[in-house]
Amino acid sequence: MPRLTSESAFLECIDRHFANSHPHMERGRGDDCAVLLCPERMTMSSDLFLEGVHFRRSYFSPADVGYKALAVNLSDIAAMGGVPLGFSLGLMVPPSPEFADAAAEEDPGQPAPAGCGAPVVPAGTEAYWDAFFGGMAELAGEHGVALTGGDLSRSPMMGVSIAIWGGPSDSEAGPVPFLGRQGAGVGDVIFIVGDFGLARIGLLALETMGRDAETLYPRAVRAHLRPVPRVQEGQALARFALTHGATGSRISLMDLSDGLARDLPRLLGSEAGSGLYADLAIPEATLADEIAGYCLANDLNPLEQATLGGEDYALVGTCPAALADALQALLPHARRLGTVVKGNGHLLNGMPWEACGFDHFA
Amino acid sequence: MPRLTSESAFLECIDRHFANSHPHMERGRGDDCAVLLCPERMTMSSDLFLEGVHFRRSYFSPADVGYKALAVNLSDIAAMGGVPLGFSLGLMVPPSPEFADAAAEEDPGQPAPAGCGAPVVPAGTEAYWDAFFGGMAELAGEHGVALTGGDLSRSPMMGVSIAIWGGPSDSEAGPVPFLGRQGAGVGDVIFIVGDFGLARIGLLALETMGRDAETLYPRAVRAHLRPVPRVQEGQALARFALTHGATGSRISLMDLSDGLARDLPRLLGSEAGSGLYADLAIPEATLADEIAGYCLANDLNPLEQATLGGEDYALVGTCPAALADALQALLPHARRLGTVVKGNGHLLNGMPWEACGFDHFA
Repeated sequence: MPRLTSESAFLECIDRHFANSHPHMERGRGDDCAVLLCPERMTMSSDLFLEGVHFRRSYFSPADVGYKALAVNLSDIAAMGGVPLGFSLGLMVPPSPEFADAAAEEDPGQPAPAGCGAPVVPAGTEAYWDAFFGGMAELAGEHGVALTGGDLSRSPMMGVSIAIWGGPSDSEAGPVPFLGRQGAGVGDVIFIVGDFGLARIGLLALETMGRDAETLYPRAVRAHLRPVPRVQEGQALARFALTHGATGSRISLMDLSDGLARDLPRLLGSEAGSGLYADLAIPEATLADEIAGYCLANDLNPLEQATLGGEDYALVGTCPAALADALQALLPHARRLGTVVKGNGHLLNGMPWEACGFDHFA
Repeated sequence: MPRLTSESAFLECIDRHFANSHPHMERGRGDDCAVLLCPERMTMSSDLFLEGVHFRRSYFSPADVGYKALAVNLSDIAAMGGVPLGFSLGLMVPPSPEFADAAAEEDPGQPAPAGCGAPVVPAGTEAYWDAFFGGMAELAGEHGVALTGGDLSRSPMMGVSIAIWGGPSDSEAGPVPFLGRQGAGVGDVIFIVGDFGLARIGLLALETMGRDAETLYPRAVRAHLRPVPRVQEGQALARFALTHGATGSRISLMDLSDGLARDLPRLLGSEAGSGLYADLAIPEATLADEIAGYCLANDLNPLEQATLGGEDYALVGTCPAALADALQALLPHARRLGTVVKGNGHLLNGMPWEACGFDHFA
């Protein structure tokens, strides 16, 4: 199978998948820097996605890696209610200057499972990187985001570093202000847009069963390999906040990357002394079926798994109670998880989180 | 020695070194994204800086790593003639979730040599990261560039991924257009701002002698560990190009990261079929003393080392011959290396590059 043996071959592969023109790019890839046409305000973030830390090549197809590395970054723009514009890509290519891959011998490829992404082929081959860039470009295309440049380096392991930025969405009243984590108040409703817990079940199943996990837990596996960045919903929430003026300015939002149990205290500033806590009502029966199924089969506590699990990339936020019905009308698949309370600790179904066995919450 | 054992301890260490306010940052670190106030045009780049590929901890002090990771990125903004504004930092921390470091046992630290940067202490300790961020913050402060956010991850090896962006410098005629690689024409003068070749000699000396190399080759070692991004000179050249109108638009510029022999053909588009080649005149006697000294002691060809050597981060460019004297007056330390010619190959001191033994030129 042909291998990518030079930087220029890599760049050609990138050019096949990513257009080098975009309304946001006055000058694209090929110079020391890109030149971008920018709105007055931009929102900017970056995330690492590293082999052995964030993904394994044994069950991530190359297209899955390319997809998810960009998805987790898009999710940060979603959490601000922004419109993604461009991203810069740092690509760590194992393991030698020739981009020919000793690991390819160790990892001889597996038959492609149905479902998520392209066949698992050895890293280092042109087919591997073609699938990788294909998975990334498909998602970039969905969101209209430009690849403006970046850097290639050999590396002991595969890794992807993406910096991403976006502008505000437009409204009749002008650019829509970005949302943020600030704003929660006592009595506000805590809501979530997207699944939570499934990605963790997918991870656990993939770690023990490999891609065979897809047969038993297809949604959970997909949630882990192909999380959906909630970009449209983030923008809808930012416009909603603008429409509701001063009341709307109390809408807070973040993306759920480390699990409800770790992220909600950040949103509420609980550990920073805000005095705000979450009072959650999450009946076990409302959890996704595959969470219950996996936990039953593996003697795990479904609520614990669902709230501890990271990498959901759902949007979690708070809004004043008076706006909750309107928000629900705007986003019918949003779900109320509970209420913001003044207190000394977080509650889940009426019990202190710790009492539910969630030591990690501290 | 205390270790950084949590993400929040890391973030506190970062906050000690980097202000979280800046005219360019409407919202700084601590949310899903930063919110930036942007000029209409920005220039954007990113570079990886990885242990074992771009640096070794055996002779890079932590402050050197922090410094150089940012310096190589600033150099890309310099090559555009831009004013650096902000950067986002992806930090790969070896090797465990606790940030406590098995590598620290293998690499027990060395006595600090005089000169470049902080003492070499084991990674994983607070002192290591304090020195790392100190080296980076010192350079960031010199250039007034804001750290807007980023990502921390454990990783098998240490690594730094930086995305950086800048705006145009100002002039009475408005924002100064960014420079680029386009523009060289037959008869143009090829010039360089900054040293070339020294960084390679520094690398060779460090690889064989470790930090003892500093005694014999202090300038070369410093060129490798602490390259100077030519930001002011880049801006001066961009203003110079604007002042000279249509003639000035023929000034091309790039930063020298892979050595003259690889980078000049990129600048001239030689391999892309421009028909343009470099006719260089570089008398051996004009090379830096330490290049000659090291090559004499190690039976190497000084011209070959000087032109093959990468990581100089000098600015190399072309300008119409009619502007060469004015450019020299503007930047007295700029140096003429030769002329752009139409032809079939590059020349060095009247000989085809290949005939000088430079097989790598192809």
